[in-house]
Amino acid sequence: MKIIVAPDSFKGSLSAVEAANAIDKGIKNAFPEAETVLIPVADGGEGTLETLVAATKGEIRNVVVIDPLGNKVEAGYGVLGDKKTCVIEMAAASGLTLISNEELSPLEATTYGTGQLIKQALDDGFTSFVVGLGGSATNDGGAGMLQALGLKISDADGNEIGYGGGSLDKIASIDTNSFDSRIKGCKFLIASDVENPLIGSNGASHIFGPQKGATPEIIAQLDQNLAHWANQVAKVTGIRMHDMPGAGAAGGIGGAFQAFFPCEVERGIDVVLEYSNINKFLTGTDLVITGEGRVDEQTASGKTPMGVAQIAKMQGIPTVIMAGSVSEDAAVLHDFGVVSIHSIINKPMTLEEAVRNAAVLLEWSAEQVVRSYFHSINYIKGGAIYEN
Amino acid sequence: MKIIVAPDSFKGSLSAVEAANAIDKGIKNAFPEAETVLIPVADGGEGTLETLVAATKGEIRNVVVIDPLGNKVEAGYGVLGDKKTCVIEMAAASGLTLISNEELSPLEATTYGTGQLIKQALDDGFTSFVVGLGGSATNDGGAGMLQALGLKISDADGNEIGYGGGSLDKIASIDTNSFDSRIKGCKFLIASDVENPLIGSNGASHIFGPQKGATPEIIAQLDQNLAHWANQVAKVTGIRMHDMPGAGAAGGIGGAFQAFFPCEVERGIDVVLEYSNINKFLTGTDLVITGEGRVDEQTASGKTPMGVAQIAKMQGIPTVIMAGSVSEDAAVLHDFGVVSIHSIINKPMTLEEAVRNAAVLLEWSAEQVVRSYFHSINYIKGGAIYEN
Repeated sequence: MKIIVAPDSFKGSLSAVEAANAIDKGIKNAFPEAETVLIPVADGGEGTLETLVAATKGEIRNVVVIDPLGNKVEAGYGVLGDKKTCVIEMAAASGLTLISNEELSPLEATTYGTGQLIKQALDDGFTSFVVGLGGSATNDGGAGMLQALGLKISDADGNEIGYGGGSLDKIASIDTNSFDSRIKGCKFLIASDVENPLIGSNGASHIFGPQKGATPEIIAQLDQNLAHWANQVAKVTGIRMHDMPGAGAAGGIGGAFQAFFPCEVERGIDVVLEYSNINKFLTGTDLVITGEGRVDEQTASGKTPMGVAQIAKMQGIPTVIMAGSVSEDAAVLHDFGVVSIHSIINKPMTLEEAVRNAAVLLEWSAEQVVRSYFHSINYIKGGAIYEN
Repeated sequence: MKIIVAPDSFKGSLSAVEAANAIDKGIKNAFPEAETVLIPVADGGEGTLETLVAATKGEIRNVVVIDPLGNKVEAGYGVLGDKKTCVIEMAAASGLTLISNEELSPLEATTYGTGQLIKQALDDGFTSFVVGLGGSATNDGGAGMLQALGLKISDADGNEIGYGGGSLDKIASIDTNSFDSRIKGCKFLIASDVENPLIGSNGASHIFGPQKGATPEIIAQLDQNLAHWANQVAKVTGIRMHDMPGAGAAGGIGGAFQAFFPCEVERGIDVVLEYSNINKFLTGTDLVITGEGRVDEQTASGKTPMGVAQIAKMQGIPTVIMAGSVSEDAAVLHDFGVVSIHSIINKPMTLEEAVRNAAVLLEWSAEQVVRSYFHSINYIKGGAIYEN
């Protein structure tokens, strides 16, 4: 019996690594001799760096950069087990989790720290990058990141503009001369599921601004500023980010990558699955167990359990999903190679109780699911369960 | 694929019949062609009458009797499909559910109505009885039932004593002359899991009195009165109910049956399973699904899921359990032929939400469990799940 355990994090309670460990314990409770392969995964958002490093036995290197508000913060970039690929998670330097709700500053927040991370990795000799977007606190169109890498963005008086999306309306000129020349010799694989354009009612400011603290007035201002930024960028690069699909990812940093970096964009979960080598381990596997905090109809559009189920299905291997919360509309996943979907909740309880006991609940319910799934094993082996 | 669906009720939300229907729907959602046999069961407590009548395609006959407080109430007795066996559920005439919490009257509550039910069945010609104890509001030692069947229980002035355990201390004499003579020609099978003696710290009043509204003072009085009652009964029958195992069942009615009726006592679930003919249906069955509202360590001592799992195990058929609430200590059930135990709760929620949505939750989770259990069916059939 070989089982691949490939969950995402259970947000707010278990990291992907903790979730994988709990599921593994549950499997071993039922079948101590089972062979398990733990591949914690992420869908390109937060946790991507940690899980890819763990899956490839890589390392994390810490760098002091500035956070979204300009304060110093230690952030890590990852080096995968191949020692060649560098993983940048923009949330590590420019993420919402670095600041409190009271500190949310959509007009001032900058991606400068993300640029510093990339610069350090370039200094360390890396040329192959995986970049996880998502979880950003910023709405600056990636201008801060470009500034950290040498782009001169100036106002009418020839002074550098300040940080944040609120300053983009002052741009009078962009000078690419001192932009880090090493970048054009690199490869950037952007992990992002966001299809939104940079500006307009479906753009970065309108769709993702509110979760970063933007009021309707601020949203309107940010959207205008991003439009001005896009016009200025188009002048120097010839690339129109305005309506480009995916340019609106992570406060517009998606557009900055498209305009200034040699890059490709892939669905986050596909990037993670590719680099974590799950394919290599699937051979001879009987069952894949994946999961995340919440599973619903949305899960079918590229969340971790869906990506895992799809890659397993290509080799004819069935997947079951464990989740803290399961919506009835998740039944759509049955059409994509998911055998069954199980909640870890074992009685009526509050969210707080569920979060506090998540590891034990996941261990218990994973045990029950594998007992059910592999019930015939007990017959064959005359094992403990059906023995008199 | 043949599945027997044999749940108890999910107390407070689904009757056993409703639970069986929900599980059946879930199975059919996954495997429309599955053969299912629905055998709602009960463990001898409330619901026994309804489930045995349903399982044997029998009928319920309504009789007007008095409730625990002496008010008229319509109560039913059951006639099984064999048209010979009569089922009496004492809770139907003398149960807690017939009165409100404010009306709890442990000193006055009488089993007289249960005696009336038996008398009517005798009048209707029945000689073979199954009696379900449990759920009683009474603590009268079964004196009321015996009064309804002609036993004269008198005080020192030769007057009949009143109803309820509070009057038992007045007994000066018991006259069996007009006790219904048909009873000695009958067979009574008592379904009861209670092993408690009639009196003492482990007796009816101390153990079951509190849930019937008895304060510590009332408990002491009831226990003394039952002791007096037992002494008086011993004088006329030669049978000492005092320490008799099971005499403390249902406020002491267990002792009354032992002293005045030709009877045998069996574990409730065994009685129910015997009369519902589950054995007959087990042949060729792949899986048995049972369940009830709450499953924990206690379930192993004779509750429905345990009884069902045991009878299935004798024929080598595995059982899975569905429940509203599952305690981790329920893992002990794995040692008794239970493959796996699954909660129907699919996200953090209140008990009230769980109760309100129980049917949908049970249907969904039963579907997921059979999908997991029979996953290989999909491979074999090239069915919807793994088809490209």
